[in-house]
Amino acid sequence: MIYLDQAATSFPKPSEVIEAVGQALRNTPGSPGRSAHQGALAASHIIFEAREKIASFIGAEDSTQVIFTSGATESLNLVIMGLLNPGDRVIATHVEHNSVARPLEYLRKTREVKVVYAPCNEEGLVELETLERLIKEHKPRLLCVNLVSNVTGAIQPLAEILKIKGKSLVLVDAAQAVGHIPVDVTRWDIDFLAFSGHKGVFGPPGVGVLYIKPGRESELSPIKLGGTGSRSESLEAPEFLPDRFEPGTPNLCGIAGLSAGIDFIEETSLMKIHRHTTALADLFLEKIKDHPKIKIYGPKERIKAIPIVSINIEGLSPSEVALRLDKEFQVAVRPGLHCAPLAHKAIGTFPQGTVRFSFGYFNRVSEVEKAAEALLKIAA
Amino acid sequence: MIYLDQAATSFPKPSEVIEAVGQALRNTPGSPGRSAHQGALAASHIIFEAREKIASFIGAEDSTQVIFTSGATESLNLVIMGLLNPGDRVIATHVEHNSVARPLEYLRKTREVKVVYAPCNEEGLVELETLERLIKEHKPRLLCVNLVSNVTGAIQPLAEILKIKGKSLVLVDAAQAVGHIPVDVTRWDIDFLAFSGHKGVFGPPGVGVLYIKPGRESELSPIKLGGTGSRSESLEAPEFLPDRFEPGTPNLCGIAGLSAGIDFIEETSLMKIHRHTTALADLFLEKIKDHPKIKIYGPKERIKAIPIVSINIEGLSPSEVALRLDKEFQVAVRPGLHCAPLAHKAIGTFPQGTVRFSFGYFNRVSEVEKAAEALLKIAA
Repeated sequence: MIYLDQAATSFPKPSEVIEAVGQALRNTPGSPGRSAHQGALAASHIIFEAREKIASFIGAEDSTQVIFTSGATESLNLVIMGLLNPGDRVIATHVEHNSVARPLEYLRKTREVKVVYAPCNEEGLVELETLERLIKEHKPRLLCVNLVSNVTGAIQPLAEILKIKGKSLVLVDAAQAVGHIPVDVTRWDIDFLAFSGHKGVFGPPGVGVLYIKPGRESELSPIKLGGTGSRSESLEAPEFLPDRFEPGTPNLCGIAGLSAGIDFIEETSLMKIHRHTTALADLFLEKIKDHPKIKIYGPKERIKAIPIVSINIEGLSPSEVALRLDKEFQVAVRPGLHCAPLAHKAIGTFPQGTVRFSFGYFNRVSEVEKAAEALLKIAA
Repeated sequence: MIYLDQAATSFPKPSEVIEAVGQALRNTPGSPGRSAHQGALAASHIIFEAREKIASFIGAEDSTQVIFTSGATESLNLVIMGLLNPGDRVIATHVEHNSVARPLEYLRKTREVKVVYAPCNEEGLVELETLERLIKEHKPRLLCVNLVSNVTGAIQPLAEILKIKGKSLVLVDAAQAVGHIPVDVTRWDIDFLAFSGHKGVFGPPGVGVLYIKPGRESELSPIKLGGTGSRSESLEAPEFLPDRFEPGTPNLCGIAGLSAGIDFIEETSLMKIHRHTTALADLFLEKIKDHPKIKIYGPKERIKAIPIVSINIEGLSPSEVALRLDKEFQVAVRPGLHCAPLAHKAIGTFPQGTVRFSFGYFNRVSEVEKAAEALLKIAA
């Protein structure tokens, strides 16, 4: 199979990741933070090391601000569901994933939170002037920025957005960004950054990260509470991080795998990964761009996108194209709305969606050539 | 190391579990429910099979009522945080874990939920007559039952409790029960059952289950929302199960491991596991019970407990005992409050706690003998 569904989950995982998950499962007798015997300490050490590594990778100064979650969805919900009170105003971009839009719409209905979506152009990039006007008009408590679109790969102009953010807190959904482009939470001076462990950072599914700027934790109410192995005498959750937002037994194997994924990126170099995957996307685009029946979405300047390419073939539904790619050519892609209907409305592909090709570090040039040929045959 | 901290997490994991986790990570190109290519379908198939298996294992008639979560803590919070509205009354037992007590206390403060704890005797068993009186007096919306205590191993008399529950909904915290005693949600006719994947059922950490009785899902508000791969055109979460409570990419490897753990139990037989582990606990108790300085907690009739034994040595703190067991004898146990301060108040060991020995299927008689000897030496 030619796997070009890397934006859903990266595949294959580096052998180091698979080994780290297996090791944690095989060789760690104990649960982190529960007891102080050798096994439990070994487990705690895995978590500690992973936290330090991730802090360093995303530019966080203090690793306790790195919260492990069950995925980007939980990270985003920790902020959205935990922060917003009745009457609060939020501005989000019009390319948000449902992991942001659904909690926001839920709070609009149940908590009288006011939600405004800043328009994006047909390339999927936010219209900065309108965004600035909206921020001045609504003075939102929270600004949600989909840093990289899972539909088009579009990278939002974060530097420009941060200049006009006013006093709003900023939540960056970096689910598709981390592992593709450099991230620096301290330099950016953002409040919250959420990402997934199993996409660009090569970890297993079931683990994610939320970075919280020092001090912001007190503005978040917890969405779940439980045992933390700390302050066990108290029926209140501890106030300090990371415990405050990490109730229950941590996903030791997932975190070990994510940690190994970060190692893999550091050892390979983000630059090398970025060059290889963007070259693949460019090659793919070069092969298909002149076909009269193929429409390509997303930023025209490809430097504004990660290696995700969304297309449609005139006269064929996205699912039909994806089905033929799978059955006739063993090419795996994702058709439809990609859990991001707003983004498809922005680029004009709602409700049928697009066919999404997403490229990863382990994809080869020959695979991309074959996939392009397959697509051209289907379009013919 | 002699690992007697099985109630924290079971160890070792069966080789089938380690293999299933590795297989899912190595051989599944795709994310379940996202796209319909071969890889994504293979991933969906793993989840589907696991769900069917678990439904059958716990006696659920419809596998869509089985929700995968990040652990027992999340399962419990889905019910407690999702169900209770201002003014609602809850009765819980006095041996609840912090994964129940902390969300309840949080709601007492923030949502004006009224929380009453039904007293337990010094063996850690609920006082049925008092419970019945409290239920009649408070007519609670929710009754929380800690089916098996993680401190003493005490099995609450669920059949008797269900007879007097009145009209209250019942949430069973079965974190320490599943894999030790038979569970049958349909026969018990309970509303919610929560358990952990990494304890008695031998799976990896980071995965848990919530069973929801058909129809009860509509009474639960979500604690997080996001992409589900279903109804992607809508900014509202789907109403149907399991999607309603499973936003975001599922923990494929964790679920695959949990599924293999259930297979392991079915193939070994719960009866055989139960006999072996209770025999180990009985042997341990037999060896230590007559020592004048060792006090043993929990049910006197050991048929009312799973293989967890909590003790204290006169004149020594629990952490001192655990430290010496670890350093001098390589015996791993868990001292302190076990994230369950209420339970320790019930049995009279708050705030110092106890030293907890918990036995598992892979523990051997010789290990238990050595651990008992070590304890006797420390007590001497």
